[in-house]
Amino acid sequence: MAFDASPVRDTPLSEAALSQLFTGARTRNAWSDRAVPEALLRQLYDLTKFGPTAVNATPARFLFITSPEAKARLAPLMADANREKTLQAPVNVIIGQDIEFHEHLPVLFPHAPGAKDWFADEAGRRETAFRNASLQGGYFLLAARALGLDVGPMSGFDAAGVKAEFFGGTTVEPNFIVNLGYGTDENLFPRSPRLSFEEAARIL
Amino acid sequence: MAFDASPVRDTPLSEAALSQLFTGARTRNAWSDRAVPEALLRQLYDLTKFGPTAVNATPARFLFITSPEAKARLAPLMADANREKTLQAPVNVIIGQDIEFHEHLPVLFPHAPGAKDWFADEAGRRETAFRNASLQGGYFLLAARALGLDVGPMSGFDAAGVKAEFFGGTTVEPNFIVNLGYGTDENLFPRSPRLSFEEAARIL
Repeated sequence: MAFDASPVRDTPLSEAALSQLFTGARTRNAWSDRAVPEALLRQLYDLTKFGPTAVNATPARFLFITSPEAKARLAPLMADANREKTLQAPVNVIIGQDIEFHEHLPVLFPHAPGAKDWFADEAGRRETAFRNASLQGGYFLLAARALGLDVGPMSGFDAAGVKAEFFGGTTVEPNFIVNLGYGTDENLFPRSPRLSFEEAARIL
Repeated sequence: MAFDASPVRDTPLSEAALSQLFTGARTRNAWSDRAVPEALLRQLYDLTKFGPTAVNATPARFLFITSPEAKARLAPLMADANREKTLQAPVNVIIGQDIEFHEHLPVLFPHAPGAKDWFADEAGRRETAFRNASLQGGYFLLAARALGLDVGPMSGFDAAGVKAEFFGGTTVEPNFIVNLGYGTDENLFPRSPRLSFEEAARIL
């Protein structure tokens, strides 16, 4: 086989796997005290990093908050409704984007030596960083579920405060925050409705 | 069990499944002529829709381009380097976001009857739409791989042209475009480097 491509790719995963990733998975609002070992966080990154991004820019950055000291810095910056579960989860992950991601393109996108120069404009760079770090956020959440973890993503926090407290003096800006661990059924909402295919999609 | 939660969620998927989703999967640049049935497109949406989004807003919209007539409208709007493979792929998907997604919140987020009013500000609404539709783009790409399909996501197209041609008079704006089908190894790049854990992540 050429490179590392799989010889057969046209088989759906099992129903159990699809349930673990999508149909049976739920955003968790309460967490068991079961720890998440560092080796599992590294494995999670090593899956996430392979998801496709524009010019392989992979602009997402991942700050794993695990120590009581770091959690005490994060908690006051969370929206009131998110604070208790954020403190309870064994790991909080601040996913951000490096708006100077293009500095890495000579290494990350060797096919096109001039790719860095395509991102000279800051507004365009910010849009590319935001889109692709958010895409990578989606890969991260599903990679966590693929590894048997539960997730609880949140947008309710003081973004300027998180920037200053955790990314001050860097070119990284916070995008969203994820609680990570092994969830319980406590405070689990009933599954909310979804738009039908006809409401959200069309075939031309 | 409460609701539809799975009783056991702490088991990683098999190595084969992780390869199909992440480690062995590759962005495809050439496509076999094997068709993608409409039932599979609907199944793909029915997995994607369950991925978590802020206030369950699910702002992404999916326009599946399958007919020769629709492909002929899209092709001139693609960047030169993307045109041939876009015409070759059996399906092109324009993923966009509805910037008026908040109109659906009374149905989609019944826990908080006032949620629609949280998005009165257009700039905030656009940011939420872009972040969460991009997240859903990540779910879509991995759901396609979970169903045995290959993907080729692209940002290189005339966004204003796609807006006018396919979303004129609507509140949907294009985000990125995906080639979908069963890929071949033709024009497959060698796997590009990724940032190490130490370059992209930190544990506090």
